[in-house]
Amino acid sequence: MKIDRKRLEHSIEELGRIGATERGGLTRLALSDEDKRGRDLLVRWMREAGLRVTVDQMGNIFGERPGEPGRPALMMGSHADSVPTGGKYDGQLGVLCALETIRTLNDHRVRTRHPVTLVVFTNEEGARFQPAMIASGVMAGKIALEDAYNARDKDGLRLVDELERIGYLGAEPCVPRPLRAYLELHIEQGPFLEEEGLAIGVVEGIVAISWSRLTIHGVQDHAGPTPMRIRHDALVAAADVVSGVRTIAREIGGELVTTVGNLTVSPNIVNAIPGKVTLSIDMRDPQDATLDRALPRLDRVVREACEREGVRYELEHYWRVPRTPFDREVVAAIERAARATGAGYRRILSGAGHDAQYMAAIGPTGMVFVPSRDGRSHCEEEFTPMDDIEHGANTLLGAALELAGAL
Amino acid sequence: MKIDRKRLEHSIEELGRIGATERGGLTRLALSDEDKRGRDLLVRWMREAGLRVTVDQMGNIFGERPGEPGRPALMMGSHADSVPTGGKYDGQLGVLCALETIRTLNDHRVRTRHPVTLVVFTNEEGARFQPAMIASGVMAGKIALEDAYNARDKDGLRLVDELERIGYLGAEPCVPRPLRAYLELHIEQGPFLEEEGLAIGVVEGIVAISWSRLTIHGVQDHAGPTPMRIRHDALVAAADVVSGVRTIAREIGGELVTTVGNLTVSPNIVNAIPGKVTLSIDMRDPQDATLDRALPRLDRVVREACEREGVRYELEHYWRVPRTPFDREVVAAIERAARATGAGYRRILSGAGHDAQYMAAIGPTGMVFVPSRDGRSHCEEEFTPMDDIEHGANTLLGAALELAGAL
Repeated sequence: MKIDRKRLEHSIEELGRIGATERGGLTRLALSDEDKRGRDLLVRWMREAGLRVTVDQMGNIFGERPGEPGRPALMMGSHADSVPTGGKYDGQLGVLCALETIRTLNDHRVRTRHPVTLVVFTNEEGARFQPAMIASGVMAGKIALEDAYNARDKDGLRLVDELERIGYLGAEPCVPRPLRAYLELHIEQGPFLEEEGLAIGVVEGIVAISWSRLTIHGVQDHAGPTPMRIRHDALVAAADVVSGVRTIAREIGGELVTTVGNLTVSPNIVNAIPGKVTLSIDMRDPQDATLDRALPRLDRVVREACEREGVRYELEHYWRVPRTPFDREVVAAIERAARATGAGYRRILSGAGHDAQYMAAIGPTGMVFVPSRDGRSHCEEEFTPMDDIEHGANTLLGAALELAGAL
Repeated sequence: MKIDRKRLEHSIEELGRIGATERGGLTRLALSDEDKRGRDLLVRWMREAGLRVTVDQMGNIFGERPGEPGRPALMMGSHADSVPTGGKYDGQLGVLCALETIRTLNDHRVRTRHPVTLVVFTNEEGARFQPAMIASGVMAGKIALEDAYNARDKDGLRLVDELERIGYLGAEPCVPRPLRAYLELHIEQGPFLEEEGLAIGVVEGIVAISWSRLTIHGVQDHAGPTPMRIRHDALVAAADVVSGVRTIAREIGGELVTTVGNLTVSPNIVNAIPGKVTLSIDMRDPQDATLDRALPRLDRVVREACEREGVRYELEHYWRVPRTPFDREVVAAIERAARATGAGYRRILSGAGHDAQYMAAIGPTGMVFVPSRDGRSHCEEEFTPMDDIEHGANTLLGAALELAGAL
């Protein structure tokens, strides 16, 4: 049994048109008008595939294909939101490969012991509302529903109000549900599979992640008549921190990655000495212990940079996810399915957070990776060859068949 | 003859309420609704002082007090726009001291040989529309009217459309007019007068200024699965430039000041490696030759930072104003007037650009400075004691009486 490559390709193209950018990418921020249109299309396709569609309190969409009564569902899916000027594979590909798996089961009139449920998670990216993976986080009981509802985008709009506005504030409780397993196909977003000429990554788990937020308070002043000797420039201190964050990765080495992705200057005009800078620090490593070493270094980098410039600061380590190992049985099932496709594969660790991270706290979880060209993602150049997507989708299908128990 | 301190103080307070911020500052961006309300109040006060009010093509407001027919006017004024969360002295104080000077002439029924004209310049700050001092620049023939009209704010709104919207797109040609002299009172925006316990600065000229714009093109990618070895992070290169710009001032020393005031990151989210950064570089020195040495250093700082990170860039030195010496006769008149107040004064150079810079190309020009507490400006803490303001305004009055020729 194989998925229908043409049908899958067509779906990727059609959904990819909603929020498409001129340069081949995608801007479909969570709970935007584009997100609503993407969701509407997916719901239509889910209904056409005979699924019973429900929406929960966090706007997560479920489409259930029945199994034997009383059995926990095999759940598959991903998210449909994107970062600004992102690509059309991140998230959407996992949803569409799961949908294609169900369509293939339908084509072959396969009945399964366990129900098979397609899920589309809300606001995975964290680009519009923070934190990322907020909806699977609520489902896993790691984030309070009220906190999630009160998350605000940069214009001050609340998540709950935007859910209601686009018509996806559902009634189903967003709580853990019995799971046979959770499977998610996703692009690798790193260079390893492509570099090694492999089509499939059998994901063993997700690296440990730490997010910090730094606010630097300098002294806003005129850039002309203020002599250098009396300056307290928030941006000069921030630049020191950006360099220092890079140095932490270089000094600790290994697989540690450190990034300042967000930096905002105030008042941000040519002729004013910056009075305030806020910035983010993202650090990840396969080992929790590495982050335990990196965080005190970050504290020191920030303290020394701010002391040098004579500026005040607040540093907050506000989000930490330990390394998430996936379920041994599920990983093994994915590996068998990958081998059966005949394509090259290897076991791999995910450097990115995914909804699968929270789902692993609810039930047995695993992921399938497909390669990212040049290792790139979260950009318009994001691309995965259709050959690899086909192998990945067939791996998902194979694992689903085994885990759901074809009758 | 002395100005009326109470009346001046009251006017500063009243105008300062329009666009006032909670923390005692001012946000009155050029051609905003607040700017319109500020202008309307000034026009009312100008008419109440018996002035003939006209508005030119750039929205500059003129209020003329007649002199002998055919004589060139003594012009006095400044601007009424502010930077975001700026103070209520920068610009507005110069306009109100000029108005108070005219009110005092009226009180004493003084007739002058030369007409005395109050001027309120449009968009001096350059905070909303670039470049700064755009309207005096057009008047001096240094900026084309069409270019000024097409200047856009960050929301894409054109200056000419905003002029029209607030009702200040006048009919008078914005061209050089015969001038007896141009006088501008302004806050120092630096620490020197306060440090030396002086009330008045007799400004001899304005430092040389250079503005540059840098765009860095990195490779946008996911902050998690992208190993450090393949990164091309636009913000890491930009941080290097910010540090390097500070180093230029330290190495060349003297009175050179260098500032990165504006820096914008794209896509600017926690978990994406910055793909693009734009930033500004502002450099100033009393000597043109110092900037001639600093600019090639800036080129090298940028080139080396971008080479280290493997990123492309465009660097544009888009605005350069040579040192502007003021008119010897006007400066001497201001000095005599300062001495006559009995307050402490000294000759000084302005580190900030002012409309007086362009006016110096049209006619004999000079400026009066009053101290800035802690040298601070372009911030809500901007403050000048009323005692100093009184001495400054009396200096302006004295110089105006001498230059306009009391009959």
